[in-house]
Amino acid sequence: MFFHKQELQFTAKPDKPDAIYARRMQEVLGGQYGEISVAMQYAFQGWNMHLPGKYRDLVFGIAAEEFGHVEMLAVMIAQLYEKLPVEQSEVAAKSDPVLGAIIGGTDVQAAIVAGAGVRPVDSNGNPWQGSYITASGNLLADFTANANAEMQGRLQAARIYQMTDDKGVRDLLSFLLARDTMHQNQWTAAAAELRAEGYEDLPVPSNFPISKEVQDVEYKYINFSDGAAAKEGTWANGPTPDGRGTFSYEDAPYPKDTAAFPPPTQPDERYYGTTPKPNLVEKAAGTVKDAVSKK
Amino acid sequence: MFFHKQELQFTAKPDKPDAIYARRMQEVLGGQYGEISVAMQYAFQGWNMHLPGKYRDLVFGIAAEEFGHVEMLAVMIAQLYEKLPVEQSEVAAKSDPVLGAIIGGTDVQAAIVAGAGVRPVDSNGNPWQGSYITASGNLLADFTANANAEMQGRLQAARIYQMTDDKGVRDLLSFLLARDTMHQNQWTAAAAELRAEGYEDLPVPSNFPISKEVQDVEYKYINFSDGAAAKEGTWANGPTPDGRGTFSYEDAPYPKDTAAFPPPTQPDERYYGTTPKPNLVEKAAGTVKDAVSKK
Amino acid sequence: MFFHKQELQFTAKPDKPDAIYARRMQEVLGGQYGEISVAMQYAFQGWNMHLPGKYRDLVFGIAAEEFGHVEMLAVMIAQLYEKLPVEQSEVAAKSDPVLGAIIGGTDVQAAIVAGAGVRPVDSNGNPWQGSYITASGNLLADFTANANAEMQGRLQAARIYQMTDDKGVRDLLSFLLARDTMHQNQWTAAAAELRAEGYEDLPVPSNFPISKEVQDVEYKYINFSDGAAAKEGTWANGPTPDGRGTFSYEDAPYPKDTAAFPPPTQPDERYYGTTPKPNLVEKAAGTVKDAVSKK
Amino acid sequence: MFFHKQELQFTAKPDKPDAIYARRMQEVLGGQYGEISVAMQYAFQGWNMHLPGKYRDLVFGIAAEEFGHVEMLAVMIAQLYEKLPVEQSEVAAKSDPVLGAIIGGTDVQAAIVAGAGVRPVDSNGNPWQGSYITASGNLLADFTANANAEMQGRLQAARIYQMTDDKGVRDLLSFLLARDTMHQNQWTAAAAELRAEGYEDLPVPSNFPISKEVQDVEYKYINFSDGAAAKEGTWANGPTPDGRGTFSYEDAPYPKDTAAFPPPTQPDERYYGTTPKPNLVEKAAGTVKDAVSKK
Amino acid sequence: MFFHKQELQFTAKPDKPDAIYARRMQEVLGGQYGEISVAMQYAFQGWNMHLPGKYRDLVFGIAAEEFGHVEMLAVMIAQLYEKLPVEQSEVAAKSDPVLGAIIGGTDVQAAIVAGAGVRPVDSNGNPWQGSYITASGNLLADFTANANAEMQGRLQAARIYQMTDDKGVRDLLSFLLARDTMHQNQWTAAAAELRAEGYEDLPVPSNFPISKEVQDVEYKYINFSDGAAAKEGTWANGPTPDGRGTFSYEDAPYPKDTAAFPPPTQPDERYYGTTPKPNLVEKAAGTVKDAVSKK
Amino acid sequence: MFFHKQELQFTAKPDKPDAIYARRMQEVLGGQYGEISVAMQYAFQGWNMHLPGKYRDLVFGIAAEEFGHVEMLAVMIAQLYEKLPVEQSEVAAKSDPVLGAIIGGTDVQAAIVAGAGVRPVDSNGNPWQGSYITASGNLLADFTANANAEMQGRLQAARIYQMTDDKGVRDLLSFLLARDTMHQNQWTAAAAELRAEGYEDLPVPSNFPISKEVQDVEYKYINFSDGAAAKEGTWANGPTPDGRGTFSYEDAPYPKDTAAFPPPTQPDERYYGTTPKPNLVEKAAGTVKDAVSKK
Repeated sequence: MFFHKQELQFTAKPDKPDAIYARRMQEVLGGQYGEISVAMQYAFQGWNMHLPGKYRDLVFGIAAEEFGHVEMLAVMIAQLYEKLPVEQSEVAAKSDPVLGAIIGGTDVQAAIVAGAGVRPVDSNGNPWQGSYITASGNLLADFTANANAEMQGRLQAARIYQMTDDKGVRDLLSFLLARDTMHQNQWTAAAAELRAEGYEDLPVPSNFPISKEVQDVEYKYINFSDGAAAKEGTWANGPTPDGRGTFSYEDAPYPKDTAAFPPPTQPDERYYGTTPKPNLVEKAAGTVKDAVSKK
Repeated sequence: MFFHKQELQFTAKPDKPDAIYARRMQEVLGGQYGEISVAMQYAFQGWNMHLPGKYRDLVFGIAAEEFGHVEMLAVMIAQLYEKLPVEQSEVAAKSDPVLGAIIGGTDVQAAIVAGAGVRPVDSNGNPWQGSYITASGNLLADFTANANAEMQGRLQAARIYQMTDDKGVRDLLSFLLARDTMHQNQWTAAAAELRAEGYEDLPVPSNFPISKEVQDVEYKYINFSDGAAAKEGTWANGPTPDGRGTFSYEDAPYPKDTAAFPPPTQPDERYYGTTPKPNLVEKAAGTVKDAVSKK
Repeated sequence: MFFHKQELQFTAKPDKPDAIYARRMQEVLGGQYGEISVAMQYAFQGWNMHLPGKYRDLVFGIAAEEFGHVEMLAVMIAQLYEKLPVEQSEVAAKSDPVLGAIIGGTDVQAAIVAGAGVRPVDSNGNPWQGSYITASGNLLADFTANANAEMQGRLQAARIYQMTDDKGVRDLLSFLLARDTMHQNQWTAAAAELRAEGYEDLPVPSNFPISKEVQDVEYKYINFSDGAAAKEGTWANGPTPDGRGTFSYEDAPYPKDTAAFPPPTQPDERYYGTTPKPNLVEKAAGTVKDAVSKK
Repeated sequence: MFFHKQELQFTAKPDKPDAIYARRMQEVLGGQYGEISVAMQYAFQGWNMHLPGKYRDLVFGIAAEEFGHVEMLAVMIAQLYEKLPVEQSEVAAKSDPVLGAIIGGTDVQAAIVAGAGVRPVDSNGNPWQGSYITASGNLLADFTANANAEMQGRLQAARIYQMTDDKGVRDLLSFLLARDTMHQNQWTAAAAELRAEGYEDLPVPSNFPISKEVQDVEYKYINFSDGAAAKEGTWANGPTPDGRGTFSYEDAPYPKDTAAFPPPTQPDERYYGTTPKPNLVEKAAGTVKDAVSKK
Repeated sequence: MFFHKQELQFTAKPDKPDAIYARRMQEVLGGQYGEISVAMQYAFQGWNMHLPGKYRDLVFGIAAEEFGHVEMLAVMIAQLYEKLPVEQSEVAAKSDPVLGAIIGGTDVQAAIVAGAGVRPVDSNGNPWQGSYITASGNLLADFTANANAEMQGRLQAARIYQMTDDKGVRDLLSFLLARDTMHQNQWTAAAAELRAEGYEDLPVPSNFPISKEVQDVEYKYINFSDGAAAKEGTWANGPTPDGRGTFSYEDAPYPKDTAAFPPPTQPDERYYGTTPKPNLVEKAAGTVKDAVSKK
Repeated sequence: MFFHKQELQFTAKPDKPDAIYARRMQEVLGGQYGEISVAMQYAFQGWNMHLPGKYRDLVFGIAAEEFGHVEMLAVMIAQLYEKLPVEQSEVAAKSDPVLGAIIGGTDVQAAIVAGAGVRPVDSNGNPWQGSYITASGNLLADFTANANAEMQGRLQAARIYQMTDDKGVRDLLSFLLARDTMHQNQWTAAAAELRAEGYEDLPVPSNFPISKEVQDVEYKYINFSDGAAAKEGTWANGPTPDGRGTFSYEDAPYPKDTAAFPPPTQPDERYYGTTPKPNLVEKAAGTVKDAVSKK
């Protein structure tokens, strides 16, 4: 169950409305790595989790906080849109260069669809979608997805922090950036804990029998481009992070694994694909003798 | 530039066609974490990279390999669909229980759209989409995204490995699982190398001024759910993975940061939202006196 | 702010797992009119509302309940998927007709992507999307949208109620159906209250100056099809629901309003559209004299 | 069958082209509540209707009119785009502030994809999609959806009416606003007629056995937020609109219905989720003893 | 304007319902190349056309016919769904193998969302979308798109013709296949007529100054794969179809055009990308000295 | 297999950055007819092809070239975005009209998501999607799709060529326009060769038995609009391009084929649709006697 309280975790009040900036802020609300994504991602991880206890308590604890972040951003964006001009035509743009810039820089649907309001979309107006989230049931994979989400999220917050000088907006972002710092650390720690406690390890999924893999390409960097420096990295030399092997390097392709291209498929002729045997259509006096008359 | 060679990195030949399984395999080709996603993700990271040398060589080297994996899966799936039955009706389903199962278990569009062929879609027939990929320009964030992609990808490959007993299919998956093992290790190593060389660190982006964050919530776990075990993890106690702080724990909400909900916005009345002042519509003798006549 | 409690509003426990039914239930979780839609719709209406007080308290109160319904359905679906078979091939389908049916009747990605888990998608695997929701800032329009959402939602719940005999599943649906009954009544009452209090009325938006409409087609049913019975309804005779006029009926088109089709547009020739003046391309000795050489 | 006539229901001719405004107008053509949506929605309701006679004649009559509205808007938008500038670069923007505003305020694809033309997209360039429409087979639900669609549609038309001073554009909108007024009234009347004739009633679907609902929560407002004013509305007191009950009010959660969170699911281990029993991966001398070797 | 008549262009009546086949038929209604696509494509071409007269009359004449085809398929599919079983669970599937097959082979949302009805979606349940259509303003390009659409459409109709033995269904398909034959011929003839009348020619757009192209690669087949037979086609030898040149063949890459890869971009550091200069983050005693403090 | 070389087929270097133009260029990279579409389309045609030899070598040869075009455009766009301003607010727009224009004219996500980088999206920010491509297994249909793709692609390239004066950008477009010229000619030649060699002919699919079509409408233009000039084209008179018949003309509808509209469907009452028999809901003393109690 979720309970709502008409208070915010932190102040969300711009010094003044800014319809251009409002559109930018939509990205961290409804974008691929916006707050809706992390709130839903952590919640679904909780509902899919097979492990009771601290890990499940963790994802539920943060999921609910993130729904509150969705709210803080939503009310902030609604306030930023408060003075969104109604006039949006060439005549209007001609009348005032700043109005012209606002017309170009803001989201059209914020005006027409939401009446100067906020919507569950990104900064280009693409609706948020369920395919942004990850909840696989494997916690090491998912906590890595979470760490990535918090990194991308903090990166975007840092970028939009620099896009404005509004003190009120920056205050809220200062709070969200700090929480992203916390959450990056948290998911990194949780991933390490999973490994330390033996629940999961590299390579994910660690309980798939390694013996079923093709052994000789497990730790080999194969370079399919012509950049010579690729062989200089730790990914091409030395011990592997999973503690099981040693990296090696090879230019592609290495001969023994190259395989022949299989012959083309020949499905049922009633799929009417183009097949090796020409259709042998006879054309005479405007008639066609059907080459295929099966069925 | 990309050059194509009509050979495969590894044999891709099923022992026998299997239209039900073909649909499952579409996931690791055209799904969120399929081979199209990683090929495109690494390529776009290369095109967006600001750092020449080994890191760029690395992403290009793997991107090109992944395009080859797209090809191996595509030709495998086309072969699995080779005997896809044409008949797909209730009468057909009644005639043969196995045919009935195939009708239900395979992808309809593989037959109608591709003529028993492969398509750039996932196992539910959702088209692959560009919003699956990540190429932010920040390498530590992106290599974490890559590690996640390889974990989810290997997890899915392991799952579909168990869905069939076909030796030919399993052979190819054995190869791909090994490459996923390599790539998980590789991106983990590359991320560590970025940190070791001082290019980037936690929290990402590490060159955003930390002083601009709200300091007292940077390392505090705030529990917005009621799971008591959340406080037992290393994410609530001890040093933080970024080496800068110490985790603490708090039940939500902690009083000093709670903020008042801002008052509702009042945009231009020509957005025709519902506002505090009633519209005072007069209804008499079938006429309406317009309350608002601005413009 | 949202707070999470690890309890449910009502018991969500199937008598036994049922992977076929699990897919059906995804519709009322992640479909166009599923619980994610209403939760997000009411929340965004709250964040966009210009009117403080009871109406805003109402949408927040129900939004939070709906997030809890999302949770009940999610944990129910995860349990229904608990025994989802791993084997999903033609060989498997041949081995057992019921397994064959499950392979066909369940969601492929529930297995491969979520590891026998729940996802924010509908029963066809289409991801939930932000464009499902409505939060326009005009409350009479939005409460009508809400009433519709609850009607469609209850209709779908009633349909899936009949798709199973599982007592545990039906119990949960009995609870949700009752809440949908409440919410249909509630939004209908709230819409009536808005009208009674003079905040808004038909036609929405009621504060747009009616005088600016083309008056003589405001209440005229114009029949563009040839169904003669259309003239028998109350929409073609008698007083109009907005209390302002009287319906009339006319077969389309009525002469005075028919207008000429405008002449084709002639944009800049550098858009390279096909224009009335032929391109006059000269073809001689393998050369082309460019007809257009502007720029 | 549909027959086309190269005339319009009303004049659709702007006083002058306006590429900025053209983009705004795309919303009421190809948006969620644009004319394509209502035309398709009413047509599909007709094709899905189980009831012959006046209701089916009604939806077909209006569907065909709406396809004509699609046409009027399409030719209007094409004319508004007629002078869309070709030049769209920083140099061009620098040369002329109004050109700069047009570059920002218009739809890029109108130029590049349609050659200064109209497309089936909304004002943000999102393609129209079939998931916008509703045709459930239950007429009271669907007519409520229709009433909502006409309300949202008229609201958007009213908003874009105010975005321009162009007499020709406003004339067309005056006509469309009047038709939206008619259609709001019409669907409201049709919904009332369905109830009066006993075909359907609240709660929808009214022929689902009410006895199967959990009775004690059917008419209870349960407040999951902390807004105290929610109890003041007619949705919390007095008779219910379906004429069957009486509203009551309760702060959430009410004790007797709260249920325990079910224990985590334990699917087949070959989904490689993270399970309570650690994987017990042994790491020694670079080898891993596979904990799981099933299959 | 569009006028609707409650008759069909051809009989659309199945011998008996078939919910499995109904789903297949959705492809030619709401798929990428279904009837909604061609109806909308031709209509938008008409609204975007710059040329009055026979070409515009042509696209409008066929567009309206295609809307009638949408209707024939819609009523056919609704009838095929008429006996769609309500029961859809594992218990139901176990009770009857044919029911099990129907559960797997039909569209879930046809039952839950449309109440055994038709929807504007393809055979995988993907909603029809506006991005399927093409209306560029250039008629030779668009008529080629139309010819392709009719080819793909007839191909799909031929495939689903073979999927059933139902006489009523096949009768309707026989009619639609004949119309597709007509329309393939018609668009081919119309494209030839455009060229003969000098409105447009190959290469499209023929009024773009050819002199602005890089001349020496205009007619050269460059083989970026290793298939030797590519040089045997008429695309590598002899005169070109545009009548302007001669095909030649070359293995890729030919030296003179190969260009150096440009150096990596260096955007503003406030985008927080990873740049050549390490961030030089100092880590001592848990503090970080911000390397970047601009702004 | 694909191999990558860190060189380009042609120089891709703008004279100077131009963030407004960069967005325009995204269309020919990630749009419906952009380079990603043709690269993927040709590759999937190769993987689905049933015919070995020159046709397969052809599609692979061009597919690989097109992946190289994706790269050229990607690095070009990244360079065009190099000076993308960070500041994007009303204050910034007010400070400088050109900055205001850039804010409006560029892609928001290029800044926030990609850090001044390129993404797999079109010029409106819609992600590239797999449903753009066509690979049906029928080569005449697919080569026609390819010819169309190259026509639309060259048309768009010609349009954006005129949108800038940048010499470096125009140089690259001059190269790509020439390759589009080549590819239009090539697919036209290949389609002709397929017909000449008897593999396939009009109407596609030519091996579907023509005798199964309704013969008398195969070559009849039926005009469902009222444009009289439609009868003047070669599509209404004379021999048909497939060499089998003669076009004729008829105003719609011609009587003998008009069919009655079928009666409405009557699905299982448990779908709760609205049916001819009213529900007969009794309303007395606040109770409802359920009319339907099946199950």
